[in-house]
Amino acid sequence: MAGYSGTKEDYARRLRRIEGQVRGIARMVDEDVYCIDVLTQISAVTKALQAVGIGLVEEHLGHCVVDAARSSHEEGAEKVREASEAIARLVRS
Amino acid sequence: MAGYSGTKEDYARRLRRIEGQVRGIARMVDEDVYCIDVLTQISAVTKALQAVGIGLVEEHLGHCVVDAARSSHEEGAEKVREASEAIARLVRS
Amino acid sequence: MAGYSGTKEDYARRLRRIEGQVRGIARMVDEDVYCIDVLTQISAVTKALQAVGIGLVEEHLGHCVVDAARSSHEEGAEKVREASEAIARLVRS
Amino acid sequence: MAGYSGTKEDYARRLRRIEGQVRGIARMVDEDVYCIDVLTQISAVTKALQAVGIGLVEEHLGHCVVDAARSSHEEGAEKVREASEAIARLVRS
Repeated sequence: MAGYSGTKEDYARRLRRIEGQVRGIARMVDEDVYCIDVLTQISAVTKALQAVGIGLVEEHLGHCVVDAARSSHEEGAEKVREASEAIARLVRS
Repeated sequence: MAGYSGTKEDYARRLRRIEGQVRGIARMVDEDVYCIDVLTQISAVTKALQAVGIGLVEEHLGHCVVDAARSSHEEGAEKVREASEAIARLVRS
Repeated sequence: MAGYSGTKEDYARRLRRIEGQVRGIARMVDEDVYCIDVLTQISAVTKALQAVGIGLVEEHLGHCVVDAARSSHEEGAEKVREASEAIARLVRS
Repeated sequence: MAGYSGTKEDYARRLRRIEGQVRGIARMVDEDVYCIDVLTQISAVTKALQAVGIGLVEEHLGHCVVDAARSSHEEGAEKVREASEAIARLVRS
């Protein structure tokens, strides 16, 4: 079971929507739509993806990291290290 | 003609790839894949989208903004204002 | 005691350096240095600040959040909520 | 003359304020202030720096890039290349 299993449907719906938005951007490029309008969509999709990432971080912390911490110091420390690397990638993307 | 028309095929190819990656993330969520692996993909797709955005900014500056500047101060100023707002959205996403 | 107390000196040293870099940017502006060179410094300082933030997140997760999780589910959940909001602000800045 | 010379005082004031905020963060760390409060300040300073960067990009486009475009295609193209690299650094920081 993943930390986000409880809210899986919501993430699936949001990802399907983002997939459609990316397809929409490809169509805009295909139709030579004005650059600024394409850029506006790219920023919107980037934010939507970020929001999914932020949600998954919270789920992961609230389930996987907390459960590991409660089972042992070592497991907790390993999960924190791993989560922090994922958070760093998200911040830097 | 959009500023990116000359490299349209490349952007279309990259956007199709990103669309597939987003579909892949949805599949990972559907299969309860470990949160960290999903987050790694989200950061990769965010960076790919950002790179498309940065490319389109350069195309826009190099065609639409430069052409407007060469035709009149007023047109140049308006295109700069518009481009700067799009760049701000990209920086803040 | 804060989660980062153990590495406080390192953060203090990095923040003093960032403070000096910001003062340096102000001097560049005062001396009408070319925009691109000022922008290069701004990106460097933003990354340095981000790195401090990412480090503090790891410290907080590894101490405050883990300790709360080990004491009770409720305390753990509250610390996760609070940490996730701080991570969201960092991602969005 | 830099592209931002006309609004130099405003940038100088904002940078002095950011410098003070960074000094304030160092003091918070020195006084073992709670991690979340330090992180909140780091996000605020990062946003303030970004805003200065975005402003300088607009000034640079509106003066240096436009002027170069009006003098020759080659000069315009070189300034666009240079500005796009600076914008990419800002987006990725």
